[in-house]
Order: sequence, then structure tokens, then C-alpha cells
Amino acid sequence: MRRLLLILLFLSPAALAQVIDTSHSPKAVLHPVPVQAVTLGNGFWTERRRVNVEVSLPTLLQLFEENGILDNFRRLSGKKDVARRGPLYTDSDVYKWLEAVAFVLENGNDAALRKSAEGVIDDIVAAQEPSGYLNTYFTREHLAERHTNMRHGHELYCLGHMLQAGIAWQRATGKSKLLDAGRRMVEYLLTNFGPDKKPIFEGHPEIELSLVELYRTTGNRKYLDFAGYFLGGDERNLAVIPPRDLVYLFTGKPFTARTQLEGHAVRAMYASSGATDYYLETGDDRYWRTLGTLWDDLTQRKMYLTGGVGSRSAGEAFGEPYELPNQLAYTESCAAIGVMFWNWRMAQATADGRYMDVFERALYNGANSGLSLKGNLYCYRNPLELTGNPDDRIRNPWYDTTCCPPNLQRILGSLPGYFYSTSKEGVYVHLFHNSTLKWKLEDGTALELSQKTNYPWDGTVEITVTPAEPKEFTLFIRLPAWAGSMKPAEGESRSGYWALRKSWRPGDKVTLRLPVEPQFVAANPRVRDDVGKVAVERGPLVYCMEALDQPQGANVFDWFIDGTQRPRSEWRADLLGGVTVVRASAARLSPGGDSRPLYSPAGAPRQSQPGQITLIPYYTFSNREPTSMQVWVPLK
Amino acid sequence: MRRLLLILLFLSPAALAQVIDTSHSPKAVLHPVPVQAVTLGNGFWTERRRVNVEVSLPTLLQLFEENGILDNFRRLSGKKDVARRGPLYTDSDVYKWLEAVAFVLENGNDAALRKSAEGVIDDIVAAQEPSGYLNTYFTREHLAERHTNMRHGHELYCLGHMLQAGIAWQRATGKSKLLDAGRRMVEYLLTNFGPDKKPIFEGHPEIELSLVELYRTTGNRKYLDFAGYFLGGDERNLAVIPPRDLVYLFTGKPFTARTQLEGHAVRAMYASSGATDYYLETGDDRYWRTLGTLWDDLTQRKMYLTGGVGSRSAGEAFGEPYELPNQLAYTESCAAIGVMFWNWRMAQATADGRYMDVFERALYNGANSGLSLKGNLYCYRNPLELTGNPDDRIRNPWYDTTCCPPNLQRILGSLPGYFYSTSKEGVYVHLFHNSTLKWKLEDGTALELSQKTNYPWDGTVEITVTPAEPKEFTLFIRLPAWAGSMKPAEGESRSGYWALRKSWRPGDKVTLRLPVEPQFVAANPRVRDDVGKVAVERGPLVYCMEALDQPQGANVFDWFIDGTQRPRSEWRADLLGGVTVVRASAARLSPGGDSRPLYSPAGAPRQSQPGQITLIPYYTFSNREPTSMQVWVPLK
Repeated sequence: MRRLLLILLFLSPAALAQVIDTSHSPKAVLHPVPVQAVTLGNGFWTERRRVNVEVSLPTLLQLFEENGILDNFRRLSGKKDVARRGPLYTDSDVYKWLEAVAFVLENGNDAALRKSAEGVIDDIVAAQEPSGYLNTYFTREHLAERHTNMRHGHELYCLGHMLQAGIAWQRATGKSKLLDAGRRMVEYLLTNFGPDKKPIFEGHPEIELSLVELYRTTGNRKYLDFAGYFLGGDERNLAVIPPRDLVYLFTGKPFTARTQLEGHAVRAMYASSGATDYYLETGDDRYWRTLGTLWDDLTQRKMYLTGGVGSRSAGEAFGEPYELPNQLAYTESCAAIGVMFWNWRMAQATADGRYMDVFERALYNGANSGLSLKGNLYCYRNPLELTGNPDDRIRNPWYDTTCCPPNLQRILGSLPGYFYSTSKEGVYVHLFHNSTLKWKLEDGTALELSQKTNYPWDGTVEITVTPAEPKEFTLFIRLPAWAGSMKPAEGESRSGYWALRKSWRPGDKVTLRLPVEPQFVAANPRVRDDVGKVAVERGPLVYCMEALDQPQGANVFDWFIDGTQRPRSEWRADLLGGVTVVRASAARLSPGGDSRPLYSPAGAPRQSQPGQITLIPYYTFSNREPTSMQVWVPLK
Repeated sequence: MRRLLLILLFLSPAALAQVIDTSHSPKAVLHPVPVQAVTLGNGFWTERRRVNVEVSLPTLLQLFEENGILDNFRRLSGKKDVARRGPLYTDSDVYKWLEAVAFVLENGNDAALRKSAEGVIDDIVAAQEPSGYLNTYFTREHLAERHTNMRHGHELYCLGHMLQAGIAWQRATGKSKLLDAGRRMVEYLLTNFGPDKKPIFEGHPEIELSLVELYRTTGNRKYLDFAGYFLGGDERNLAVIPPRDLVYLFTGKPFTARTQLEGHAVRAMYASSGATDYYLETGDDRYWRTLGTLWDDLTQRKMYLTGGVGSRSAGEAFGEPYELPNQLAYTESCAAIGVMFWNWRMAQATADGRYMDVFERALYNGANSGLSLKGNLYCYRNPLELTGNPDDRIRNPWYDTTCCPPNLQRILGSLPGYFYSTSKEGVYVHLFHNSTLKWKLEDGTALELSQKTNYPWDGTVEITVTPAEPKEFTLFIRLPAWAGSMKPAEGESRSGYWALRKSWRPGDKVTLRLPVEPQFVAANPRVRDDVGKVAVERGPLVYCMEALDQPQGANVFDWFIDGTQRPRSEWRADLLGGVTVVRASAARLSPGGDSRPLYSPAGAPRQSQPGQITLIPYYTFSNREPTSMQVWVPLK
């Protein structure tokens, strides 16, 4: 029955439901497998994905209703007579939710969600103008502002998300109603704007990603060229974009003129993702050089240990090199997701594991932290330190700017699609989890590949390879950077992957043993906020301390970790949905922290007692009552 | 001739030109001496005060003209037909400039400045409405907003500065034109607003300080009561002030209900200063208890080493306890000045040296840094760390929000008035500088007191005491906290002062020897940004590193200081107008900081070479080309 369903899926127009479809991209070394080709078994992500489907997606739809976000569409079709509500970019949040639902449908049929989503799509399309224009803000009382507030209007940002949702929906269901509507608006734009027509720019990068995917979906090159128009910037716009906005918006001038990550972090990550997509299709080396420069800037100077980016609250922006404050970290959930989008695309272009290292870091930590364990609360900010002030509510059910919740939902929905890729040489295993891939090699040989593991809590991954017939190809298994340099006993290590080339027979097994032990990590000394401190990582997980887990609930800021003693792991089934905690030797300052002088001569002996601290995975922070929290712990 | 002038001054109505006049304040243990009773000789502050008079004051007047700030007054009197320019609080900047000029006139007669100021006063007073109302913003096109935008309108803030300027001008010159105009507006307010009339509140604390001083100047208690009305908050306003604004504005609810410093730092410091003034007159213990709680919060949890306050750019606000980021420190110049105002008043209430310790810290560092060495550029922010990004222009000639420049000017202008106080027991020496005090004991005995010193570069202070006749009284000489616990050979140590009671004869000398040697200072470990780091202080001066002074101009962030080696001092007449630099042993990370991994396993040996770093006084930072700077240096 299951096999039959799979075959039917392969035959349907929705068969190639990859998160991005690089199957014809000249510069793609790797090609993602369809989301529905991968089934995740029990384990870490399955529980996160369960709350996404059972709690997050339905409650967000309800909150959209309560806040009038869906009525904004119904108002235009005459179905409701209400005032428009919410900030000008709310349409995009609905589109992201739809995209998330589409991915969820690819993993099984959730009839209720599908029905809700179809109703939403009907409401959206009914709101479209005959011209093809569709945006619930720039109409009626704001009609005069249409295409005039390009810097902050988010018109094309909304369209980009509409296209992504339409593509995902079509891939999942075979139905093109939403995508057709999106295309009509693209056609409307192409009729009115462009190099030989009126100038336009996007204000918030997003349209370029979706236009490249639209090109991949339709084969029509004009969409790719239009993406290139946005990425290249139209010189005629420079008169209306103040120089500081060229920084903040991360668009408006040629992407290839960028030399550093700056400005609004989500914008910069989406622009870089779109530019990578554009490179994958065009092979334009200028893009590749810029992408390399920016990626070095990301990973050597501007990324938190959690994979989060965007240090500054002001402008939700990148800071200067090494400006990575912990408490004040802005690190929007969407920005960590943007890091994942970009690095996924870089990985497809190169088959280099370092991009998936960054992807995995952001996935398990800086993005994963954004959704509460119960699935009903979201972080907008994901700081690395909290004082425990109960007024500082870091997890909330609703934000008027609702970008993060559906972004987290689409990541969780599409997650199976990020586990594997194929290449001419064989198949790549990027991520680890109990799972089954049912797909094919690029020569068409059917392939089933399964993982048995308790990753990330345990480092043993047993992989069973079952080609339809004995076949020579290379199995590439990622060797995460956090595991240190691993020398495979057979095969070779290639760009962060264990490459095993042989003639594989059905049922062949390979076991990967990753050293999942807690380790202390230090930051480049130029990161001023982490000087004299270490963080704890265990496998792909970054850890943190919460006061709740310490003896007498002592403020986390009164502890100094002993870097000379090996920390230990302990599985705690009862804690935070089941986590491995890390225990480390430490010294606790004598009580009375509040009456200690703020400044005093250095070198005075510090009054402290030995003790033991407990660390929990970072993604679980603030899932209990308010309490102090820190990732970077001072050394004794 | 000089003696004759002094006698004339004593006889004139402008004789009692103290910065605040606590001569009849029931709770004042100390009484400030008039500004003009103190003459500063050669040295540190005389050079700073010279540029203030020769450069800062005249250029700011010119910038006021160029930016239309004075025309805003002339427009209302019909002298100019122009549009109003600048933010709604610009009047206050002019008043602060006038107050600064008044203090300058008390130290000598600058005819040109006086003439300019008199012209400005004429223009101001000519703009006053017959009702007594005067504000250049809330009139004509903004008339309808008068008294409706109380939270952000700054109407009473402007009036407060007008009153302070009027009082200072009257004390300096005997002329009351400006003060009379200010009083007319106060009378207008008293006619329309108050407990039994319409409710009003201030939005930005300042009016309470000035009303108490108006009470001190006129003896009319209704002004004191009006100050109490503002400090107490009018319950009827609570419906129109959102709770978050009760935090941000630091006004609107009873001052005595405050339990912590929060919200806008300048507002909180001005409110605390005004509350201290109110306590000095009323002796209301509830105020004193609150002031004690807030002062502990200031000095134990929320003040930078420089005496600056206000950690957050968002809201120019206090952060949470121990939230003292260095690079992102907001530390507005005005907030450090507010720290001085408040602590000066606390000192008068107690004769406790710990308040003057904080005053001196802010004076020499966090406020002093706000004016460039040449006197033409100002800091709005005074951060403790800079990356050296040339786009980050920390010193500027003009800010549309011009609060800091004239605030710095009035501090420098009035500085002699902060050197000494009298009490029933004798005379207090708070600050050290070549100087002469010509004043009298509280029993009326004329007293001349002179200091000979090269403070802060050197710690020896020779004090000559010359009463008109031999007289028994106590000479109190401040023993700064930075000097550690000092046991005087004769006399006693009392609340941070060296108390020498004896019969003083003309020409008696006392020598204070303060241990002005560089020392390493550490922060409370709860200050996360200073963990594993030390700062260098020498006497009252906080030091910093700039890359310009390091071997090969190496980035300051690549150095680790050796806390076990004694730092050394060196006088450098050629540097930054003449400063004592500090040299310390350090290790320099091997070049290539930008290509080091951002995160790596802890404990890996750090590649470094031994070297020597040079530190300069913090107040001189960014007086050369853009360069990286830090106060807190990581320990090796």
C-alpha cells in the first residue's frame, strides 16, 4: 500500500517536491531529494515536527483569524466588510504558513490542515485584482502608496513568499491555483517594470529566491533574468535610496559589489540565498566570489555559536566584526533560518560539508530555540544570556510582526528534504536521524537508505543501503566539524564527508561513530563578550545554564566553570521532554552578589565554594519559569 | 585691585553665586562656596576651561545661529520671519548655554561673551507671550499641542533650564531679566495647573531642580511645593501615562515609590537630583530612603567605571543590573553630568566623601570625555570600546539634539564652585587643583585657602590655610576611595575626609600625599562584559588603550595584559596636550586575527608574543584618527 502510494506520487505532477529543485541547475553538484522521499522515524525531530503539526500550525491559523490577517484578503473580495489590520507585510506571514502546510502534506495527508489551507488559498486568490496585482495593504486607502514605498513597503517581499508558497503547494498537491495567481502578479510586474521600463526595487530581499525557483519550476528564463535585475540593482534607483539604506536593506546596489555582511540580518541572509540560487543557474563567477567573501565574514566574524546572526536590536542588524553581545544579542529566529537557507544552497553548489556544519548549527540551536517545546510560543530574539527578569518575556504566542512563527513552521515541515542529496557520484547523507530515504540514484537506480540512530543524544549512526540491484556508487556521509578530524578506516574523507565508493548490495550496512561527548569551546579572543569564558557543546547541540538547574537555584552569573575537569553527560528523560544534560565542575561565588562592590582592585581573592553546574541544550531555554541563563560561562 | 574687585562682588546682589545655594537648607550639612570665590591656577582643568571659553562657547553660539535655534525666538517676537527649526526641545539648549556663560562670567569678565549672551536674553524675553507662556515650539502651528504632549513635549524641561539659566545669570550679573521672565511662566503654570487645578506632569525631569533653586533664591515656598507636586506625581495623570512610560520617563508616579534606576538615564539622574534638592529643603525621610536605595543601585549595579550611566541605546536607558556592555555603552554625556549633579547634592546632605568619589569619577572620565581636547567636538555617546570603524564618528561638532554640548559647557564653567564647601565645623576640600579659595568660615571669619599640586598627574597636594585671624576649625580634605584606606598621621579620617581640627594660623600648611600609581581594577563578576578583564586607573583617571599607541598600531583587541607585572607611568608632554601614559606588560596574539576560527575547542595554546602596551587617559580617546579603543583589557 505504501509502495503503491509512493509510485503514484512519482507519477503525479507533484513528484519533484524538493525544497529547492536544482535538478537542471548547471552549477549544482548536489541535487536535493523530494521532501516526501524521506520518512523520519522516532526521535528528536519527529517530536518537534509533531508539535508543529498538532499545535503550531493550527494555533497560528487561529491567531491569524483573531488578528484579522486573513480578513485582510476577504475584505478585498468583498467577503468581509472590515478595516485592514496589522503591519503592511502581514500577507507574507500567511504565505509562509501555507508553504509550511504544503511541506507537511508531503509527509502524510493531514486532511484538516489541507482543507483549512485550501480555504485560505481561495480567499487569497479571490482578492487578486484583474491586473494581477495582489497585496492587501497597497490598495483602497493606501492605493496611492503602491510602488512608491519601495524601501519599506514589502510589496515584492510578500509576492516572493506567495510564489514560494504557490510552488510548494503545487509540488505537494499538484494544484496550481496559488502559483498561477503569483505568476499573474509577476507578469503584471514584468509588464510595468524592468530595465527598459520603470525602475523598481525590492526593499526586502526575497523575490529573487522565489523568481529563481519559479524559473526552475517553469523553465521560463525571463523569471531568472528578473531575479538578476533585482540582484544587480537598477542604477536609476540610486537617487531615491539613501546610502544608509543600501546598507540596511542589503539590496538596491549590485550584490556583487558587497564586501561584508551588514544591515538587516534577515535581508542579508535572504539576499545571499537568492544570489546563490542565481549563481547555481547562471554560473556567474562574480556572484561566487562575493558569496565566498560574505561567507567568510559570516563564519569568521559575525555568527553566534548558535548559528544565529544579527547582533543588534537597532535595525535588527549585523554588528561590526566580532560584535557578538550575549544578553543583547538580537539573533532573530528568521535570521538563523536565513543562515540555513543560504548554507543549504552553498552546499548544493559545492558538496562541501562546511556549509552543512553551519546549517546543522543553526538548525539545532539558533533556529530550533525559536519554537517552545510545546509548540505554542515563539522567540523573536534568541539571546545567549538572560537575567531572568520576568518582564522580559522572550517566548510569546503572537507578535504583530509574525515573520518568525511561520518561518519556523516551514523549516520543520520541510526538514526531511534537507537530509539527503544526490550527485553524479552517488548519495549524500547530510543530517542524522532515524529515517528512511526512498528515492533513486541519478542513473535511475531505485535506492532505499535507512538510518538507525539516537542522534543527537548518541553518536552512533547505522546506515543500511538498499539499491534495487547491486550498484557501484559513492555513499557520502557527513563528518561534522564538531567531531574533530576523523580518519575513516575504509574509504576516504572528502570535503567534510566520508566517501565510501564500492559496489553496494541490498542491505549493506555502514556504521558511523561520532564522538558525542561534551566539550568546551572558546571564541576568537576578538569576540570581546566571550573573553575568559567557555561554552559547552555536545554533538551538534550548544548548551546553556539556567539558574533553575543549579544548586539552590543560584544565579548563573555567580558560577565559574573549571576548564580542567572533564564534564559528564546524563540522560534525563523527565526533563524538558527528555534531554541529555551536562554536568561540570565549577566554583560558586559566595552569596551576596548584590552587595559586592561594582569595581575593586584586581587580584583580590574571590570568595567561592566548589560545586557542580548543570547545563541543558540551548534550544530548551526559557521553557520553564523565568530564570537567568547563559551560554558562555566564565572560567575559574 | 583684585581684592577690591572681590569686595565689590561681595557687596553686589550677585554675591552668592553658588552652583546650588543650600545656605538655608535645613538638611544641608555642607554649603557650597560661590563659583567666583575660587580661582583655578595652572593645570588640568584650566586648560579644559580655556578651550571651553575660547572655542566651545563661541562656536556653539554660532552653530545655534546657523541652525536657526535663536531665530526660533526671534520669529515669535517678529524680529525674523522664518520657519521654526530643530526638535521641539531646542530652547533648553540655548538656556544651558546661557547658564554656562553666566558661570564663566563669575570667573572673570569676558565682555564679548557677555554681550552676546545679553542679546540672546533680549531675544528670548521678547518672545514671551503676555500670559507668561514661553516655548518656541508649542505656538502658532503647534499651538493646539500645548500642554497636550506632556510625555514627550519637553515644555517644562525647557522652562526648568530657563529658570536655572535665569538664576545663574542673576547670580553672576545681578540682572534678573531672564529670571523674571522664567518666573512669569511659572506663575502662568501655577495659575492654571496643580493639585486643585488642572493636572500636569513634566515628561522629562528638570523643572523640580529649578523650582527648588527658585525657592532658595526667592524664599517663596510655593515654588518648593510645586516641585513637590511634580515629584509626587498627580494621580489624575496615571490614566494618560502608559506603564512603560512611568519607567521610561522616570516621572509621573511618586518618586518615593521608585525602587530602582530604570528608563531614560538622564531623566532618572535629573529626577534624583531634584528629589535630593527637595529632601534638603523638606527633610522628608521617604525621599531619603528612596535616594539611598537608588544610589546603591547606581554604584553597585548600574554605573560604568567612567561614572557614565545608561547602558542601552534603545531609550537611552539604564539596563538591567550589571548590564554594562562596553562597545554598545550608550553613556550619554548628559547622563554622566546628571550623576555629578545628583552626587553633589547627596554630598551636601551628608558630608560623606563617597558621593564626591562618584562625582570625581564622572567628572574626570565619563563627562570629561564628552568634549574634545580642542573644544570643538562633542561626544553624545561615551562608549568604553570602539572598533575603530571610521564611519562611527563618535565626536561631532553638532547634534540636532544639542543637549550634551551646553551641558558640558556649564559643568566646565561652574567647576570652581564644586571644589569647596563650608560646614558649621569648618571647610571641606572636595577636589584637587592649583587653586585659591577666598571666602569665609560660617562664623564669618574670612578665609583664604590655596592648593599647590599637579593633580591628577601627581598625588601631592600642598594646602595653605590663611584665616583672617587664628581660628579653631576643622579642615576636611577628601581622601579619595581610589587611594585605598589612608590613615592620617594627625587628625582623623571621617566619612572619606581627613579631618584636621586645630587652631589654624595664617599660612599654616598641610600636605596630602595621595598614592597616584597605576592600578588594575576588576569588575564584580556579574558584569558579564568585564569577566576575565582588568582596567587601569591612575588616581581619578580611568585609562584606555588605543591602537595608535601600540607597536605597529596593532588592534587593541589582540592584546592580553599581564596582571602580575606592575604597570609604569610616563609623562608625555607631546601627547594629547600632555598626559601621563601607563605602560604595561602584555602578550600580543600572532597576526592574522581575521582568519582565526571564530569558535574552536577550548584550551588550544594561544600563539602570542610578549610586548608592552601603552594606555592613555580615557577622556582623551578618539582625539586623533579613528582607531580601536578599549578600557577593559583581557588578562593574559
